[in-house]
Amino acid sequence: MSYGDAMSARTRSGERRAEIVRAALEVIAERGYRGASLAAVAERVGLTQQGLLHHFPTKDALLVAVLEERDKWDAVPNGSWRVDLLASLVEYNAMRPAIIQTFSALLGESVTEGHPAREYFTDRYSRVRASMATALRAEYGDRLPNGLSPERTAPLLVAVMDGLQYQWLLDPESVDMPGAFRDFLRLLGETVE
Amino acid sequence: MSYGDAMSARTRSGERRAEIVRAALEVIAERGYRGASLAAVAERVGLTQQGLLHHFPTKDALLVAVLEERDKWDAVPNGSWRVDLLASLVEYNAMRPAIIQTFSALLGESVTEGHPAREYFTDRYSRVRASMATALRAEYGDRLPNGLSPERTAPLLVAVMDGLQYQWLLDPESVDMPGAFRDFLRLLGETVE
Repeated sequence: MSYGDAMSARTRSGERRAEIVRAALEVIAERGYRGASLAAVAERVGLTQQGLLHHFPTKDALLVAVLEERDKWDAVPNGSWRVDLLASLVEYNAMRPAIIQTFSALLGESVTEGHPAREYFTDRYSRVRASMATALRAEYGDRLPNGLSPERTAPLLVAVMDGLQYQWLLDPESVDMPGAFRDFLRLLGETVE
Repeated sequence: MSYGDAMSARTRSGERRAEIVRAALEVIAERGYRGASLAAVAERVGLTQQGLLHHFPTKDALLVAVLEERDKWDAVPNGSWRVDLLASLVEYNAMRPAIIQTFSALLGESVTEGHPAREYFTDRYSRVRASMATALRAEYGDRLPNGLSPERTAPLLVAVMDGLQYQWLLDPESVDMPGAFRDFLRLLGETVE
């Protein structure tokens, strides 16, 4: 196989993976976390289940790839989040329960021993806390109005987002997730309409 | 069977259930969520797996019973929580990762379609939000120092506790769960040493 052939095989494999991840996201949106079987995803992209396993050896591996893809889409250029944009992100999340459900279910599993998604989530939280601290520092400097540093506020900001997702997924009638998150931003000293 | 016999059979069954729940908690503490198999719990109480299934038809049913038992132990008389006691509860939780892991893993699963633990968690959060709002009102009246009502603060308080648990379970070296929670209480206007 020539160098060019190897390159294009790799490109084709990358494209195939991207196509599978998109299909998985569609299946999740339609059928939820439990309904998103490897068989259903394989069918959607016209692969046998065996063929799909060549790209993603387990359902968890595929779900992690879906969440990584979501992280890319949600990313803001240069990782420079603005705090007021977070309220919009939470509004947006409230309109896509299936991916939030998938994220929340997989986060729950990931804290168990030797779970394949553990590394993804550990790395993700480390990155997200750092990027939130950067956003808070850009807005408030070294101290927020309440006296906390950006680094000490960041884990709270992330915790509120995750924790509200569970309460909202369990009981969407009782929990106004975007409203509660705006309340939290007010606690930080943000002016939120 | 006489009335007395039926009563004592019911009592014995209740005692047996309680014994199984205690054994399950021990197995969880030693082996974690994944290691806590029905077989391991059955062995500890000297039952066959079939005998255990008579009391708890699934692992999830047994885990829900363990969490309900924990809720009873953690409960404060008359449901009258004091806000400053919450910091102690979070300190305490940081010393028992296995039950927190079990709670967090099961909470994650519970948001998926038709999960048997969904009702437990939905009811629990409804109760916990109400009892936190009562505690906040007892301390601050109708408005907290930051201007939010107790009812609007309660979901945030609960969300921070849950969200911090995930970050801490994934990365205990990087996340000081009790310290972060005390920071959140300061945001509410609490004086925390």
